[in-house]
Amino acid sequence: MCGSLGCKGLLEDLALITPAILSLYEPIADDLEKTCRVFDDELFSDLPVVNELCSHIRQYRGKMLRPGLLLLAGRACGGVTGEHHTLAAVVELVHMATLVHDDVLDEADVRRRYPTVCRRSGNEAAILLGDYLISHAFHLCSSLDSQYASRLIGQTTNTVCEGELQQVHHRGNYGLTREQYIEIITRKTASLTGACCRLGAHYSGASPEVAGKLEQYGLNVGIAFQITDDVLDIVGSEEQAGKTLGRDLEKRKLTLPLIHCFAEGPAEVRARLRGLLDADQQDRLAMHDLLTASGSISFARQAAERYIQSAVSLLDILPASEARESLQRLAAMIIDRDR
Amino acid sequence: MCGSLGCKGLLEDLALITPAILSLYEPIADDLEKTCRVFDDELFSDLPVVNELCSHIRQYRGKMLRPGLLLLAGRACGGVTGEHHTLAAVVELVHMATLVHDDVLDEADVRRRYPTVCRRSGNEAAILLGDYLISHAFHLCSSLDSQYASRLIGQTTNTVCEGELQQVHHRGNYGLTREQYIEIITRKTASLTGACCRLGAHYSGASPEVAGKLEQYGLNVGIAFQITDDVLDIVGSEEQAGKTLGRDLEKRKLTLPLIHCFAEGPAEVRARLRGLLDADQQDRLAMHDLLTASGSISFARQAAERYIQSAVSLLDILPASEARESLQRLAAMIIDRDR
Repeated sequence: MCGSLGCKGLLEDLALITPAILSLYEPIADDLEKTCRVFDDELFSDLPVVNELCSHIRQYRGKMLRPGLLLLAGRACGGVTGEHHTLAAVVELVHMATLVHDDVLDEADVRRRYPTVCRRSGNEAAILLGDYLISHAFHLCSSLDSQYASRLIGQTTNTVCEGELQQVHHRGNYGLTREQYIEIITRKTASLTGACCRLGAHYSGASPEVAGKLEQYGLNVGIAFQITDDVLDIVGSEEQAGKTLGRDLEKRKLTLPLIHCFAEGPAEVRARLRGLLDADQQDRLAMHDLLTASGSISFARQAAERYIQSAVSLLDILPASEARESLQRLAAMIIDRDR
Repeated sequence: MCGSLGCKGLLEDLALITPAILSLYEPIADDLEKTCRVFDDELFSDLPVVNELCSHIRQYRGKMLRPGLLLLAGRACGGVTGEHHTLAAVVELVHMATLVHDDVLDEADVRRRYPTVCRRSGNEAAILLGDYLISHAFHLCSSLDSQYASRLIGQTTNTVCEGELQQVHHRGNYGLTREQYIEIITRKTASLTGACCRLGAHYSGASPEVAGKLEQYGLNVGIAFQITDDVLDIVGSEEQAGKTLGRDLEKRKLTLPLIHCFAEGPAEVRARLRGLLDADQQDRLAMHDLLTASGSISFARQAAERYIQSAVSLLDILPASEARESLQRLAAMIIDRDR
């Protein structure tokens, strides 16, 4: 057991933990510390070269959103066990693996205010480190008694990869529909946050109905999170986000504001948007202005808000608790990251 | 059940299956066909873009060495079950994932006589497809009742990644020792062939002692396989190997013949070797001649032969059977690939 000051100390060290996040993690502060220990123990290697790369990875711990969701869902559904700590480390390993490979795909330079692995150690080390993280995620998951989590995590990572493959396939497709976009982000982002909440509930002994509602909560939160992330890629500040922005535009990846503008904007605005996307050098500021004026940024923000409202209403199935309240506040915070 | 003609038909379709391999797979021909069906079912997706990439992957099925080892070990230890077919597909998925990512790392153009995924669909699709394959490997593995295989596969992929990370780290290290080289290839290649044989034995109800000997057999076979592969990268024909060769030299990756030459060659030979490695354009023919004249190619081939002798002697623990005989012949064939 760690004292609450010690836990706060550890959490405060994390790059993107704000006082607001710290306060909503209050019911799971000890659990997050234990999760971090499981995470570190799992990644320890007898090879210095591997440890050196992994020590760099620890700097990427950001908001611990996925472990936070899993542990809060556990607390809200009856209580957290050692299995929850293991699984919270598993989902963070899965998430880290996707971050490391995403940075290779996006040719990103900065992550959590540190240079990305691909920038620091090369694409080869980044590809292998991502593989190493996903391998350790499954290895850690297999330490549990039952196959339930291994199966759910395996299904989820299958789905995440499908979403990522769809996304790469649709780069430069200016006809991408809103439905296709939502399907892609549901797979690549929301399936994991949904699985986190289901796992947290299931391992607390929640009924299938409650576990299903929690998964739906996680799916809605994940979709809102990704829509917001995509909006921030256009309008956010790199200083605040702690990572390279504008990569969606450089990769000609259509996100909700652009889809809205292509679908609803007048002909001359659509032509201007196409011109900005096709340009050799992306003009993020001009894109920001165009999509704000067309109402597309507001449209995307409102869509995210609706997903958050759906998420919060799904929590009505749970008895009132500090953890349920944190899940409600966490959902609201997801879309308020830049305000 | 498939008739033996049908199975032969399927195996003969595989790019690198020679009549000699076909004959030693005779005791497991039906099992390999079932394995291929499990493999195909696992990779089927409701997304056309994913299926298109995966159909390309099927062309990479080469010698089916890893499923072959697992199934032959199973047959030699008492019999093959449905679990063996599942696990044989799992190890082939793991192997395919490493091939796809290796081709990105090596910037290779040709694999199994077809363009590599990275060359055909880009590095991004190749990274994601590798992730998709490893995810499906773990997902399929989690369909078994016990966690035994998930744990062993997880440990093994951890080790494989460590070996790959060590290898990237030591590129351009002309002082790499023989021991370091053997450690790297044991991790990156032999750990998986060792795990295949252990799994085959374990799921046939073999004793821990027998399963341990089979794993040792697989480790020795894997080390000999990799030494031979590395020799072929210098002296082999691309036509026969069905893949891009000379990449080790281009990446300044020291393999056993080069390590021998640096350690044992006279000063002027070492200087010439260093000159060839440092050159902007690799001269594979000159490297071939130099390392043949220095006795380094023979040295490496003899080392591989000793590992094969060790492997074969470990099979004495098994009762005589057609499958045991195939394991013996398979070991011998590993080092005779180019003759």
